[in-house]
Amino acid sequence: MADLKSTFLKVYSVLKQELLEDPAFEWTPDSRQWVERMLDYNVPGGKLNRGLSVIDSYKLLKEGQELTEEEIFLASALGWCIEWLQAYFLVLDDIMDSSHTRRGQPCWFRVPKVGLIAANDGILLRNHIPRILKKHFRGKAYYVDLLDLFNEVEFQTASGQMIDLITTLEGEKDLSKYTLSLHRRIVQYKTAYYSFYLPVACALLIAGENLDNHIVVKDILVQMGIYFQVQDDYLDCFGDPETIGKIGTDIEDFKCSWLVVKALELCNEEQKKVLYEHYGKADPASVAKVKVLYNELKLQGVFTEYENESYKKLVTSIEAHPSKPVQAVLKSFLAKIYKRQK
Amino acid sequence: MADLKSTFLKVYSVLKQELLEDPAFEWTPDSRQWVERMLDYNVPGGKLNRGLSVIDSYKLLKEGQELTEEEIFLASALGWCIEWLQAYFLVLDDIMDSSHTRRGQPCWFRVPKVGLIAANDGILLRNHIPRILKKHFRGKAYYVDLLDLFNEVEFQTASGQMIDLITTLEGEKDLSKYTLSLHRRIVQYKTAYYSFYLPVACALLIAGENLDNHIVVKDILVQMGIYFQVQDDYLDCFGDPETIGKIGTDIEDFKCSWLVVKALELCNEEQKKVLYEHYGKADPASVAKVKVLYNELKLQGVFTEYENESYKKLVTSIEAHPSKPVQAVLKSFLAKIYKRQK
Repeated sequence: MADLKSTFLKVYSVLKQELLEDPAFEWTPDSRQWVERMLDYNVPGGKLNRGLSVIDSYKLLKEGQELTEEEIFLASALGWCIEWLQAYFLVLDDIMDSSHTRRGQPCWFRVPKVGLIAANDGILLRNHIPRILKKHFRGKAYYVDLLDLFNEVEFQTASGQMIDLITTLEGEKDLSKYTLSLHRRIVQYKTAYYSFYLPVACALLIAGENLDNHIVVKDILVQMGIYFQVQDDYLDCFGDPETIGKIGTDIEDFKCSWLVVKALELCNEEQKKVLYEHYGKADPASVAKVKVLYNELKLQGVFTEYENESYKKLVTSIEAHPSKPVQAVLKSFLAKIYKRQK
Repeated sequence: MADLKSTFLKVYSVLKQELLEDPAFEWTPDSRQWVERMLDYNVPGGKLNRGLSVIDSYKLLKEGQELTEEEIFLASALGWCIEWLQAYFLVLDDIMDSSHTRRGQPCWFRVPKVGLIAANDGILLRNHIPRILKKHFRGKAYYVDLLDLFNEVEFQTASGQMIDLITTLEGEKDLSKYTLSLHRRIVQYKTAYYSFYLPVACALLIAGENLDNHIVVKDILVQMGIYFQVQDDYLDCFGDPETIGKIGTDIEDFKCSWLVVKALELCNEEQKKVLYEHYGKADPASVAKVKVLYNELKLQGVFTEYENESYKKLVTSIEAHPSKPVQAVLKSFLAKIYKRQK
């Protein structure tokens, strides 16, 4: 495992070096230094789950056959494209949300002398993906499918981000918009496609599969992505800050969290008033009142029930899939997230 | 001509409608309304020169043969992709530059309730391009070349924007970096590829040409794009504000303009001190001093000489091209910009 990660990180160095020598641009020492620092700051510092899962999935699709060095490189390169995509979204999201820290360091746009240049850096990160794909996949039969895939998933993610942004428009705190259906749409588009479907779709493409034949796989992964995000919402309030590595602020931030959506569904008129009055306020007394309400409504139990239900449904769908290697891929994703505490 | 423009605008309505019904996303009335307003605000309001020139160029490549309705539609769709690309850059540039107005109206991010959501809208605009390409070109032999072309040109533009941003870093006003070579690199990457090369490259692709055989065409168009931007820099200071439609502020903004680069090249030690002291200051007295210096150095004459030289060189290169239709395309671009006053 540590071995896989170090191989994966070596591929990062190769890709970075290639980008810094891309012949489509006339580099100078200044610009090369800027991009290198920007990449090192924003791309490799996460958990790398999405990127690594491309390699894992590809191995499972090949039913444990030893991968050649080239196969490992190609799967890693696609894994890194997903990490680049993620970095691009995070750099821009942090600007839009006026965030302060990310992965334990100041957000990129908060770094001295960076400021709003970070928006263009986000664009550069996004532009690196087709550069990587062109360099390493231009001759492959699935090259055009890769381009279409990344384009479609990026479009879906940006559309999910849009509904999130326009429903939480500044100065328009309106809980009546928060429904389970809105929550599902936000998380499905903003998170599930790029975090769950994209890594497996990449693995399927290098394995020579046609994605049109894998609509069911897409559906299962999107369901898993939604379940993952519900866990995230749950842990934000009920998780152990020590274990998660941050203190949740969804209540203060008026987030369209699964918890508030469930609370709105289950509460009586009196409790509804409490939510309308206190949800989205920074004041600790308001936050505490919302949490008391969540406990009154037994949301921890409601979540456990949701978790068990989701798990059962997912297992049933997975086991109905005709291909054992595909089942193995899906089960490995599910095992990584079921009952997670962080 | 008015006819061409109205046909072109009809294609905009078709493309917009298709995007608002894109099956890759679950639309709601709110999100559809947001995107429609955002598109109408940012995409069709410019001069549309870049977009229209795809149709013009394609006609010239077909040597005056009547175009079919489908051919006009496809050329227009690619023209609109360039306008979408331009809108995407402008929305994000205005955020980065804290601009106030654009095309005679407030910048999109200044519109009430939009704010930094504009950054995500910029991303959406960018994402619409591959959606349009997929819908209308997926079956064409040149589909993958179109994707590669837009990706490469976007990468070059973002890289040009990067060198512009990092050389004019806030709080580091240093004229010693401003050289003709830096100026050329900024304008070549930031403007020339997408404004001059891209429309012709699109026309060549629909005409069935392989872009690898047209490196010379690319070079000529990039040279023309550089000449165009030098004119822009010149008109910012010496043009008629009534005719251009705005009052230039390159001196106040410490821009790496062709004029300051030439001034630095031609000035003596004493004049250099004036530039170092007064360039990039908002104070009108400082601006006036810089303008006096430009006159002392006879920059208007230097520009006229540059303009005549550029024109001669471009004509020579164009006439050396083996294909008459390609010559016609290049000459039509040159005629549109030679000695322009706005």
